[in-house]
Amino acid sequence: MTFQLNEWSAVRLAQVEHALQQWIAQDAPAGLGEAMRYAVLDGGKRLRPLLVLAACEAVGGHAEAALRAACAVELTHAYSLVHDDMPCMDNDILRRGKPTVHVRFGEALALLAGDALQALAFELLTPCDPSVPATTQATLCRLLARAAGYEGMAGGQAIDLASIGRALTEDELRRMHRLKTGALLHASVAMGAACGTADAGVQAALTTYGAALGLAFQVVDDILDVTTDSATLGKTAGKDAANDKPTYVSLLGLGPSQAYAANLLAQALGALEASGLPAGRTHALRALADMVVNRDK
Amino acid sequence: MTFQLNEWSAVRLAQVEHALQQWIAQDAPAGLGEAMRYAVLDGGKRLRPLLVLAACEAVGGHAEAALRAACAVELTHAYSLVHDDMPCMDNDILRRGKPTVHVRFGEALALLAGDALQALAFELLTPCDPSVPATTQATLCRLLARAAGYEGMAGGQAIDLASIGRALTEDELRRMHRLKTGALLHASVAMGAACGTADAGVQAALTTYGAALGLAFQVVDDILDVTTDSATLGKTAGKDAANDKPTYVSLLGLGPSQAYAANLLAQALGALEASGLPAGRTHALRALADMVVNRDK
Repeated sequence: MTFQLNEWSAVRLAQVEHALQQWIAQDAPAGLGEAMRYAVLDGGKRLRPLLVLAACEAVGGHAEAALRAACAVELTHAYSLVHDDMPCMDNDILRRGKPTVHVRFGEALALLAGDALQALAFELLTPCDPSVPATTQATLCRLLARAAGYEGMAGGQAIDLASIGRALTEDELRRMHRLKTGALLHASVAMGAACGTADAGVQAALTTYGAALGLAFQVVDDILDVTTDSATLGKTAGKDAANDKPTYVSLLGLGPSQAYAANLLAQALGALEASGLPAGRTHALRALADMVVNRDK
Repeated sequence: MTFQLNEWSAVRLAQVEHALQQWIAQDAPAGLGEAMRYAVLDGGKRLRPLLVLAACEAVGGHAEAALRAACAVELTHAYSLVHDDMPCMDNDILRRGKPTVHVRFGEALALLAGDALQALAFELLTPCDPSVPATTQATLCRLLARAAGYEGMAGGQAIDLASIGRALTEDELRRMHRLKTGALLHASVAMGAACGTADAGVQAALTTYGAALGLAFQVVDDILDVTTDSATLGKTAGKDAANDKPTYVSLLGLGPSQAYAANLLAQALGALEASGLPAGRTHALRALADMVVNRDK
């Protein structure tokens, strides 16, 4: 029986959506909860949560911890989009086919909703419930904090800001994306793995997988920005070129970017192959890597 | 020999400044570290770190954990000021006598610096160093995340936003401030206490102390906003009235607000008295409560 990513994902996505529905601030005051829920629910591919759950399953980890970690990385991703869309950043009005949070709720509430989503991510990782061991809670917070902060997502966004209208070398571009998008994708894999106890060889393999996948995601994003229209993407296409932002496509060209993405996919799959994990355990990670590189939106 | 708050504070403030200097992102990319450091270093009364350290000393807790917690609450406080000062929020140009972060670095970098400071707070709480037990790490993250998020600081700011130009009842005003300012002050005490092992009676006493102190801080802030000039405050005075924001003074009047602050101080001191902690252990907490209520800026 071959592995069906759609079937595997459908079950996990239902769990994640249900958990997010439960955990996001139904009772937050003064419209804050509404803005937070608008930013997160009913949208997005949920790639990061799926990576957390797939990595946890690969190492036979703690399911409750992984579900919390899956939601925490999605909240972190969602908050970054809310802030990134604001007028002082990318000034985007469309996201996942809907008006962006600041368009719908105003800039001040969008700012606060983003801030509260980041805090909520760490709240989800630290339940009073002792069913998630404290060591796992602490490790998950550590991985998420580093991936979100100055050495990760926020640092990458700062480089992105500083790079507008400036030529980057391939190394600089790779560093920017390694931080801006790669760090959280990479952390998703690492957090899933941290829900179990993997030996050093498996951890190293999953690190290689996570790094290659994180970079591949951004290369493909840059490709789709020039090859796909806004309606298909659910966000404004061509905006990198319009904003004079450096991309893999502007640096390497379209064909070489596509070849680079294929090469990164091979690296990710090769790492899983070499991990020593049984093939039955890594079906989902393999299929997710393939989806990242071969997606059309 | 009587307790001298100035002497006690001087030693702790030097530790906190040194730790913040070490821990804030010297190498963060593209100006982000500079903006983060500008937002935090060489400014502020450091009330929250002092509360953490005083509460930890009261229960004889873990010094390294407390220093990390002290810095984490200060980073959280600092990030909230950076975002709160932005044009879409309070649009303030002066903070601690200096141009605000967005005036100095631009709005986009101010937004990112705030985001990165919040992440760094959780990073400081979760060192790889096993000298801070994982259970303490997880508890500190839990307390900080709740105090910063929708049930705490961010929630209070959302109520504040929604209340501009609208009459609040005393209960609504108290709820707003309990969340907006009180939650993090309260958490400072709770996080300090969580660095040790206090019995339930001591914990309850410190909770009462923290809640009364958090509320008193805001009542006094509202009083100072009308009784003190901008040069003394180091920030724009009279802005609540100018923004038509409800305050304790506008609701209760100046004299009753001063009486209320005195009453809250008595509550805080009474809780320490009743805690069963030796008086020698609670000198600093008592003196800090007195300072909060009787400060002139």
